[in-house]
Amino acid sequence: MTTEALFAAWAARTEHSLQQALPSADQAPRRLHAAMRHAVLGGGKRMRPLLVYASGHLLGVEESGVDAAAAAVELIHAYSLVHDDLPAMDDDDMRRGRPTVHVAFDEATAILAGDALQTRAFELIAQAGASAELRLQWLQQLASASGVAGMCGGQALDIDATGQRQTLAQLQHMHALKTGALILAAVRMGVAAGAADDALRAKLDEFARALGLAFQIRDDILDVEASSEQLGKTAGKDVAQAKSTYPALLGMDGAKARLLELGQQMQDCLGEFDGGRRQPLAELARLTVNRGS
Amino acid sequence: MTTEALFAAWAARTEHSLQQALPSADQAPRRLHAAMRHAVLGGGKRMRPLLVYASGHLLGVEESGVDAAAAAVELIHAYSLVHDDLPAMDDDDMRRGRPTVHVAFDEATAILAGDALQTRAFELIAQAGASAELRLQWLQQLASASGVAGMCGGQALDIDATGQRQTLAQLQHMHALKTGALILAAVRMGVAAGAADDALRAKLDEFARALGLAFQIRDDILDVEASSEQLGKTAGKDVAQAKSTYPALLGMDGAKARLLELGQQMQDCLGEFDGGRRQPLAELARLTVNRGS
Repeated sequence: MTTEALFAAWAARTEHSLQQALPSADQAPRRLHAAMRHAVLGGGKRMRPLLVYASGHLLGVEESGVDAAAAAVELIHAYSLVHDDLPAMDDDDMRRGRPTVHVAFDEATAILAGDALQTRAFELIAQAGASAELRLQWLQQLASASGVAGMCGGQALDIDATGQRQTLAQLQHMHALKTGALILAAVRMGVAAGAADDALRAKLDEFARALGLAFQIRDDILDVEASSEQLGKTAGKDVAQAKSTYPALLGMDGAKARLLELGQQMQDCLGEFDGGRRQPLAELARLTVNRGS
Repeated sequence: MTTEALFAAWAARTEHSLQQALPSADQAPRRLHAAMRHAVLGGGKRMRPLLVYASGHLLGVEESGVDAAAAAVELIHAYSLVHDDLPAMDDDDMRRGRPTVHVAFDEATAILAGDALQTRAFELIAQAGASAELRLQWLQQLASASGVAGMCGGQALDIDATGQRQTLAQLQHMHALKTGALILAAVRMGVAAGAADDALRAKLDEFARALGLAFQIRDDILDVEASSEQLGKTAGKDVAQAKSTYPALLGMDGAKARLLELGQQMQDCLGEFDGGRRQPLAELARLTVNRGS
């Protein structure tokens, strides 16, 4: 199978698992269930599930062995978007070209839907068809990546830093928690399902950390370049407002150079693995560095 | 040890576990950590942890064997209060005589603190010093009680019913999810740590369901009786507004009679167990029926 075909197959497995994992909108409480489905089934690149499958694939793990992990990590990601979009947080009305959950439904429903999606993620792990040891490893990996030492902590650091200029180290730490931890967990959950010694695990951790960082730098670059087109003369406003981004701290050329370095580092990390089996993970790394949206 | 001394010891264990489980307010992100501590360490009756310990005690389980379960169920309860108090939900400014989390901190921090408390509950289970099988049972029990088929679902049903008159069956179903499921989980988590056959488990499920219902009926009665004192002539307004409560649907005498019946049912459920070992659970049942606040 080509890498493209594998991605399509894994994305289809993810959609199927998520469809199955979410309660029917025909059953009460309908509004809550519909909001949960709106949040999760509205598209998205499914990067984290693909990372779970690709990491498992690297070690020869059967796809069915990581379905639950792939769906669980996406449910955590989806819940975080629902809550981040709330008026008290980022106050976003649109996501992926559709109204956000609190706009399509209401704020109370959005809060509850996010809460219930988080719960469902952990419940999926409990119910997964995997050994007790593996399920508990997944639980620990996912919980640790989601909580104060991961996603929630990073979001809080981001809020605390609002209006303040951050150092590169601070920015990197914040993103390592806010987005990096869940990306790292996705890779680790795939890896946990296979057999790898400590040295290989360390290489894959390094790969995942570089991927998380590359993802964020590319995000910041896209924001600036999109802003330039839209804002015309006022381009560069983010830098003037001292908003901490990688282009603001490193310069645009510096940020792009760092991104290319990370791309190389990721390919190097995969060098020791079987050439066929590493293709999907290598391709996800390339897509992250080059993505246009 | 007297039952009173046992309760004091279990409450102290709970405070200790919660103190240990929560991140230090001296570490960044300080505001998030402080908000989580404010939410959890601000008092409260610790009814759910006491139910875990008392249910374990009934079956001769060591206290240390259920510490993590007791703390985890309280963290879920605490997170639900933080989110229920938000302006978009019940919009409550005070809880236990102190400002609610979004008032003492801010809304964004309250949303995040609730999210992180839920995550921490599941992480505690992952890290508990119990067998893999028991941890996975606890995970399933707690997740199922917290999600759409439990607490979140019940809260959504409550919101959907706002302004509508509910039947007794609808009211009972809503409360069985909203508050009953977590009370049932607390009992089941204690029981899971011990040895009990299916018949005894069924008796304890019946006990826990009766306790959840009794808790809610007593809550509704207290609301009405407190209102009468405060509102003077406008007492009975809840009934006039067709707010669905047990006193509204059964009459005050009917609600009180139902509460006494439930009290008897609970003592009957415990009849088959050892007279000494059942005392704490029997006392929690009595306290629930008679509580004044």
